[in-house]
Amino acid sequence: MSFSAVELIIKKREKGELSSAEINWLVSSYTSGVVADEQMSAMAMAILLNGMNRREILNLTMAMIASGERLDFSSLKAKTADKHSTGGVGDKVTLPLAPLVASYGIAVPQLSGRGLGHTGGTLDKLEAIPGWRASLSNDELHKQLQDVGAVICAAGSGLAPADRKLYALRDVTGTVEAIPLIASSIMSKKIAEGTSALVLDVKVGSGAFMKTFERASELAEVLVQIGNDAGVKTSALLTDMSTPLGKKIGNSLEVEESVEVLAGGGPDDLIEITVKLAAEMLSHCGLTDVDPRENLRNGLAMDKWRKMISAQGGNPDVPLPKAKHSHEVIATESGFLSRLDALAIGVASWRLGAGRERKEDSVQFGAGVELHAQLGDHVEKGQKLMTLFTDTEERFERALSSLAGAVEYSDSRPAERKIVLGKVS
Amino acid sequence: MSFSAVELIIKKREKGELSSAEINWLVSSYTSGVVADEQMSAMAMAILLNGMNRREILNLTMAMIASGERLDFSSLKAKTADKHSTGGVGDKVTLPLAPLVASYGIAVPQLSGRGLGHTGGTLDKLEAIPGWRASLSNDELHKQLQDVGAVICAAGSGLAPADRKLYALRDVTGTVEAIPLIASSIMSKKIAEGTSALVLDVKVGSGAFMKTFERASELAEVLVQIGNDAGVKTSALLTDMSTPLGKKIGNSLEVEESVEVLAGGGPDDLIEITVKLAAEMLSHCGLTDVDPRENLRNGLAMDKWRKMISAQGGNPDVPLPKAKHSHEVIATESGFLSRLDALAIGVASWRLGAGRERKEDSVQFGAGVELHAQLGDHVEKGQKLMTLFTDTEERFERALSSLAGAVEYSDSRPAERKIVLGKVS
Repeated sequence: MSFSAVELIIKKREKGELSSAEINWLVSSYTSGVVADEQMSAMAMAILLNGMNRREILNLTMAMIASGERLDFSSLKAKTADKHSTGGVGDKVTLPLAPLVASYGIAVPQLSGRGLGHTGGTLDKLEAIPGWRASLSNDELHKQLQDVGAVICAAGSGLAPADRKLYALRDVTGTVEAIPLIASSIMSKKIAEGTSALVLDVKVGSGAFMKTFERASELAEVLVQIGNDAGVKTSALLTDMSTPLGKKIGNSLEVEESVEVLAGGGPDDLIEITVKLAAEMLSHCGLTDVDPRENLRNGLAMDKWRKMISAQGGNPDVPLPKAKHSHEVIATESGFLSRLDALAIGVASWRLGAGRERKEDSVQFGAGVELHAQLGDHVEKGQKLMTLFTDTEERFERALSSLAGAVEYSDSRPAERKIVLGKVS
Repeated sequence: MSFSAVELIIKKREKGELSSAEINWLVSSYTSGVVADEQMSAMAMAILLNGMNRREILNLTMAMIASGERLDFSSLKAKTADKHSTGGVGDKVTLPLAPLVASYGIAVPQLSGRGLGHTGGTLDKLEAIPGWRASLSNDELHKQLQDVGAVICAAGSGLAPADRKLYALRDVTGTVEAIPLIASSIMSKKIAEGTSALVLDVKVGSGAFMKTFERASELAEVLVQIGNDAGVKTSALLTDMSTPLGKKIGNSLEVEESVEVLAGGGPDDLIEITVKLAAEMLSHCGLTDVDPRENLRNGLAMDKWRKMISAQGGNPDVPLPKAKHSHEVIATESGFLSRLDALAIGVASWRLGAGRERKEDSVQFGAGVELHAQLGDHVEKGQKLMTLFTDTEERFERALSSLAGAVEYSDSRPAERKIVLGKVS
C-alpha cells in the first residue's frame, strides 16, 4: 500500500492517529529513501508535540524491527534475559550484571552501544581491556551465549536500520526528546535482539535523559507496555541519577570498579542497583528465590566475567590503561556532601577525554573522574574530593569549569539516599 | 553572531520566543545551507504548532527580505501601490486592476507568480496573449513603471531567495498552513518589491487557502500588521471564495473576461471586487474621492491595459488561443443555484489543463471552464450550466468527476451573495 508523506505529516500535525499500514509505509519508505529526511524530521516534530497512542508506538516499534533482521535464541537451552539502561554517569552496571545473571544459568545477550555526549558507552568501557573486541558475528554471538552464557557486544548494523537512520536525524533536528520516538528506538533494538525477558533501568535526575520522576515514569510505562505487547517479559526500575553511580567515571576506571563488585566489594549504590536488576531478570526467568549477592560473594560471577572477557579476546589479568596526568580537587568546606551533581561530573569526565564529541572521535581509556567521597558522606575541608584523569593536560581547565556549582556542603546529615525510586511491571 | 540550529529548534519546540538575532541567523544560515533542510522543516513544524508573536513574524519577514535584493521606486514621480491575493478560482482581478489604478496616475508594480494546484497564476494567464513576456530586468521594470505606470511581471529570483527555498521545503513537509510562515512569505516579497502601499485580497471559502472567516481574518490581521510595521501602508479586504469569481476560469478565458471588465462590462462580482480593491489602493495614495468605475466606463483603464500589454511584447488585438475540444454540462434540475463550489470547479479547470501538477509542466492556454450561470441565478432543467474546454479530450472524464456534488439547486431565491466580507486596516 502506498501513501503520501505530506498527507501523513498533516494527519499527525492535526493530532490524528496514524494507522498500522501508514506507519509501516512511513518507516519502510524512510529506510529506503522514498520519504526524505526533511519530511521525516517534520513528522518527528509533529510526533514530539502531538504524541502517539500506545497502538501507534507499538506499530512504530514493530515497523522499525521489520526494517532489519531479527535474532532468534529459541534454540538455546537456557532462558534469555537482557537489561537496558537509558544512560547515566558512572553507569557501568552492565559489566558486573551480565556475568552475574549468567552465573545462575540464564543466557544474557547484551547488545550495546558506544557513548555520545556526557554518558559513557558500554563498548567504550570494555575496549579499555587489552585485546577485547566488540564485534561478533551472529554465529559467534550464538556460540558464546551457549558456551559462556554472557555476551556484551556491538549491535550489528542489521538490527533495526530504520532506527539508526532516524536516531541520527533526531539528533540534529531537536527531536530527540519525544517519548514515542525514544521508546520505539530502545525497544525495536531490544526486541529484534531476540531476548525473552527484559529489565529496563530508567534513570531519573540531572545526569539522565529524563530529569523528572514524572517524565521517567511515563517513559518506563510506555517501554514496559511495548515489551509486553510484543511478547517480551518486561519490567522497569526507576533509579536515581542525580549523582554519579559508584565512585569511578571513565572507561578503565569503570571496568576497575565493576571488577571490585564482581570480587565482592565495590560501592554500596552500585552493588544495590546491580543486585536489584539481577533479581528482576532472574525472576522473569522463574528464579524468584535466589539472592544475587551470593554469586558476587562466592566468585561464580567473577568466573563468568573472566570467561566472557576471554571469549572475546580480552585478557582479564593485564593492567588497564592509565591516564598520563591527574589533578586533585579539594574540599573547600567541611560538612556533609549535599550535592554532587551527576551532569556536571559527567560533562567533566567527557571533557577529560572519556567521551567523544563527534561519532568519529576516539576516547581516552584512562580519562575520567574518581570520587573520594559520595553524596551524603562527611568530608573535611582540604581533603581530596575527587581526582581528574586525562592524557591531555590542557583538558583540565574546561573540565574544572564544568564542575562549578557541582558540589554543595551541608552542616546536617542529609536523609539517606534512595537508589531505586520505583518499579513498573 | 552564531547560534546552534538544534538549540533554536528546541527553543521554539518548547514554546519559546526567538530573538531578532536568532531569527536573522536562522534565515541567513538556511539560505547559505549551513542550516540543513531537515532542520528547517523541524523548525517549520514547531512554528506551525507553537506559533510566533507579532515581533517574531516581523523579524522573520525582514530577515527574508535581507536574504536578497530590495527594489526602490522612490525616484519615480508617481506614488506606488500594489495588490496581493491569497489566491482563488477565477481570480483574474490583477489584470483589470493594475491598469485601472495606473489610469489614475498611480504606479503599480505587480510582481506575480505562476499557478500550482487548483488556483491559477497571473503570469500563466497573461502568457496566453501572443508575444507577451513575463520576465523583465529591473531596469525594464522601472522604465515601464515610469512610462506606462502599470507592470505585471515575474518576481525576479533576487527577491527574498530565503522565501523561495523555504516555500519549496514547506510544500513537501506538511508545513504550508502556518500563519507566521504564510504571512512572512507573502510580505517579504511585497516589501522587497518596494511598493509604498499595499492592499491584500484575503480569500475565504472552499476555493481559498483559508477555508473559514476566522482563519482568514487572523491571517489578514497579521499581514496588515507586518506591512504597517515595515512602513508600507497596508490594508486587507476579506472576500468570498466559496464560488468562482466571474464566469470564466482558465488562462485565455480569464484574459477575455478581464478585457470585458476593462471595456465597461463583465460580471458584477468581478467588477465589484476590482473596484473596491482599486478604491482602497487609490485611497492609500491620497485619492479618496474618485469612483474607479469611471475609468472602466470611459476607456482610460482599457488604454492603460493596451499600453501595458504592448510594452511587454504582447499584441492586445490578436485572438487568444482557444481549446480544441469542448463539453457542455447541463442543469439536471430547475431552480436557483444554491451551490456552485469554487474548489470543485477550480480542480476541474486544473484537470482540463489550465493548471499544472508539477512546477515543470506547461499549461494549456485555452483550457478551463465557462459558467453560463452564477451562484444565486435561476436555471431551467436542461439548459447549459457550464462549458468545459481542453486540448486533450480524455481529460473531460476526470474533470467531470471532480464536479460531482459541486452544484446544488433550491426552490427559493437565496439571500444576496456578499462579495466583500470584511476589511482590516
